Amino acid sequence: MNSSVVRYTLGQVLKIEAALLLLPCMIALIYSEKQGIYFLIVAAICAFLGFGMTLIKPSSNVFYLKEGCIITSLSWIFLSFFGALPFYLTGEIPSLTDALFETVSGFTTTGASILSEVESLSRCVTFWRCFTHWIGGMGVLVFLLAIIPIGGGSQINIMKAESPGPSVGKLVPKVRSTARILYIIYFCLTVAEVIFLMAGRMSLFNAVCTSTATAGTGGFGVMNDSLAGFSPYIQWVVTIFMILFGINFNAYYLIIFNQARKALTMEEVVHYFAIILLAIGIIFTRIVGTYAHAADALRDSAFQVASIITTTGFSTVDFDKWPAVCQTVLVFLMFIGACAGSTGGGIKVSRLIILRKTIIKEMISYVHPKSIKKIKMDDKPIEHEVVRATNVFFITFVIVFSVSVLLVSIDDKDLITNFTAVAATINNIGPGLSMVGPSRNFSHFSVFSKYVLMFDMIAGRLELFPLLMLFHPEMWKELFAHYIRKFSK
Amino acid sequence: MNSSVVRYTLGQVLKIEAALLLLPCMIALIYSEKQGIYFLIVAAICAFLGFGMTLIKPSSNVFYLKEGCIITSLSWIFLSFFGALPFYLTGEIPSLTDALFETVSGFTTTGASILSEVESLSRCVTFWRCFTHWIGGMGVLVFLLAIIPIGGGSQINIMKAESPGPSVGKLVPKVRSTARILYIIYFCLTVAEVIFLMAGRMSLFNAVCTSTATAGTGGFGVMNDSLAGFSPYIQWVVTIFMILFGINFNAYYLIIFNQARKALTMEEVVHYFAIILLAIGIIFTRIVGTYAHAADALRDSAFQVASIITTTGFSTVDFDKWPAVCQTVLVFLMFIGACAGSTGGGIKVSRLIILRKTIIKEMISYVHPKSIKKIKMDDKPIEHEVVRATNVFFITFVIVFSVSVLLVSIDDKDLITNFTAVAATINNIGPGLSMVGPSRNFSHFSVFSKYVLMFDMIAGRLELFPLLMLFHPEMWKELFAHYIRKFSK
Repeated sequence: MNSSVVRYTLGQVLKIEAALLLLPCMIALIYSEKQGIYFLIVAAICAFLGFGMTLIKPSSNVFYLKEGCIITSLSWIFLSFFGALPFYLTGEIPSLTDALFETVSGFTTTGASILSEVESLSRCVTFWRCFTHWIGGMGVLVFLLAIIPIGGGSQINIMKAESPGPSVGKLVPKVRSTARILYIIYFCLTVAEVIFLMAGRMSLFNAVCTSTATAGTGGFGVMNDSLAGFSPYIQWVVTIFMILFGINFNAYYLIIFNQARKALTMEEVVHYFAIILLAIGIIFTRIVGTYAHAADALRDSAFQVASIITTTGFSTVDFDKWPAVCQTVLVFLMFIGACAGSTGGGIKVSRLIILRKTIIKEMISYVHPKSIKKIKMDDKPIEHEVVRATNVFFITFVIVFSVSVLLVSIDDKDLITNFTAVAATINNIGPGLSMVGPSRNFSHFSVFSKYVLMFDMIAGRLELFPLLMLFHPEMWKELFAHYIRKFSK
Repeated sequence: MNSSVVRYTLGQVLKIEAALLLLPCMIALIYSEKQGIYFLIVAAICAFLGFGMTLIKPSSNVFYLKEGCIITSLSWIFLSFFGALPFYLTGEIPSLTDALFETVSGFTTTGASILSEVESLSRCVTFWRCFTHWIGGMGVLVFLLAIIPIGGGSQINIMKAESPGPSVGKLVPKVRSTARILYIIYFCLTVAEVIFLMAGRMSLFNAVCTSTATAGTGGFGVMNDSLAGFSPYIQWVVTIFMILFGINFNAYYLIIFNQARKALTMEEVVHYFAIILLAIGIIFTRIVGTYAHAADALRDSAFQVASIITTTGFSTVDFDKWPAVCQTVLVFLMFIGACAGSTGGGIKVSRLIILRKTIIKEMISYVHPKSIKKIKMDDKPIEHEVVRATNVFFITFVIVFSVSVLLVSIDDKDLITNFTAVAATINNIGPGLSMVGPSRNFSHFSVFSKYVLMFDMIAGRLELFPLLMLFHPEMWKELFAHYIRKFSK
């Protein structure tokens, strides 16, 4: 194991976090809030550690998937730990576990909160809370790849570990250019949302916070009632942008290069829109009778569907009070999730397409045992390795999910709460049903359950294996072998 | 497609059903119940059709997995249809859908009932209701294989389609001898249970009904309160026999041939007992405080755990009122199910072992990308094909399960009811939680939902693919091609 590259990259990540922590400091300056000082202190600690860890360059730039996994999962744990300190130090979240929960929820773009009251938070804390979504949405390591040359052809192993989806598609041959293009698209879409929201007379501060939280498909809001209090125009803007951020970013790349037709006929994109329309249709027909105006019912249906399938987690109504069939549809959307290569969580539409095709292929093999047709997507055969990885991912997902439900159930809450709390965290959504419904929060869980749910959030964001690898004893043996050798000399 | 062998085998199945229907006729004679006449009429219809369909011998005895699947799934549908007629004709279940539901539930050894009152049923109907479990437990086609020579080496394709588990292990080289040995073990264990129950002063009739329902891991009881009203001795006997019928029958074969040591160290059997003990432990510690005597708490824990993991579905307490963590454990057991090669349903312990090993293998491949270790069970490598089939089975299971929950949710019942109703039917258990808890029944579902649940019961019993194949248009085209050719001549 190339331990020095692990150390070096983690150092770089801390340096980036130090830089990012200066943004809330600036917000604190603008609004002259004294809480800014804590962000500055933590930034200084991160910078100090970061520079220390990057003093010695790695002996070799070559690394493999195992280093990619360990870099990614440790980065996310480091990020969350230092990111949580300001919440704790400012005293705005008095428990360290809760501060960590809120930060993990932020970086993983989950949006599950332990706060019942967010309007009294200071501006800099509110900003940092929403901004963690933006950082986590595209991934801090992808950002690192975009700005710092890590060298060799090894960076793809980081990209593989951090990016969601069954296979990592490089848009252009170079990983670094791919990462840059992704961040440019991400940044431009976010700015576009800010402009549209401000056109609806939202304040600049709220527009920036809401947009960063939408862009990362996070879901932390600036108001206690999420987006229920804003105008229909604002709600529609957010609905549309949630859907846009759930689309595979490859589609935007194609659109930029004048291949809109190809982008809009991508199998995953077509399915994604079909599922959204179907879900809105079912929920709308079921709830329209209880509304005075059909337009309101349509807006609420569309908003909630977009929010859940993209795994954002904003809300405009308390869907915990909706009829059972609507709730069931929403629980389904939780697991489906957005497109691969978007900022959304969940299993991802493309994986489900592959799974469906796997089942059909199996049935065909019963009729024609000797048929060896390959599974295709967008008319291109999918590599066997991708199909196998998708199957294993799904199995692992179901098992991690089930074990988590069992562990959380020790708290003796009702089944719906346990089931949807895990669903809402592992799929990076935010709210669930019953005691974790949109009008409630996660503060009532035991410390143990909170750590289980934090694990689920990171496991969900990194798509399981990078984080699970940390539980493989050999990884640690290999990681420290280098230092142990050094020490014993 | 060899259509003539399909026709011929279905005819044989109907002849067997005719013979089996004579048993309740005899019960009716003994207790001089006039309802016996209806069993006689249906038996006559089955015999008439059966002889008609077997008049012409099949042109060829060779057939493949596709014919095996279609024979099996059609047999189960035929069996259920004709098996339901007596319930309907006697008027004891006035709705045809309900009669069909009860029969499918019987043959698939589910034990989910639409009846709230079973003590007023006539003796012959009660017997037939419990006896369907016994027929379905080991499988009517396996029975057919045991008594009738179908020819060639093709019978293994029927065995594959009807027998539960990731791979079909022939105990001895000949399929026919394997089928016979299985039925002999099955019969002897059932008789043993009858004797033990009668030793606890249960009447012969009740002992036979209870034993056939235990043997098939079915769950239809003879009393309204299932087994709650019987003595602790009876409850312990049933607990032990439920566990025994959930063990892989290969283990009994090994024990008979003096290899008890090998039988008891089978990986699946060890895991099966470990899970049972763990589950009993968790539930016992959680409920013991609410009991006056610890022995009662232990008996209730053991009974419910044995009943659910073996997918029998008897009950001695209303576990819908147990604390959430106990309910969660039971829901887990529902999906785990018994051992492969037993009469129980669910995913099966051996499949879960294979899935766990698949995940570990995946993790190892991250650390050592070039490792090509094979997955082993009982120190023997598992064929790649079995691992692949297990993965595909699990994926298909989750998807069929999810779609069923969505369809049943149209009735607008609560999520727990929908979720556990599907879990209890697809895993062939019987009772679930909430509105389908042990003290409730399935009568309140809409006709549509009842058909969805019937589909799930058969799909669960036949382990999905044989039944799913019926939805493959090519199967029907091929099946009728033969007749269409004949007709067009």
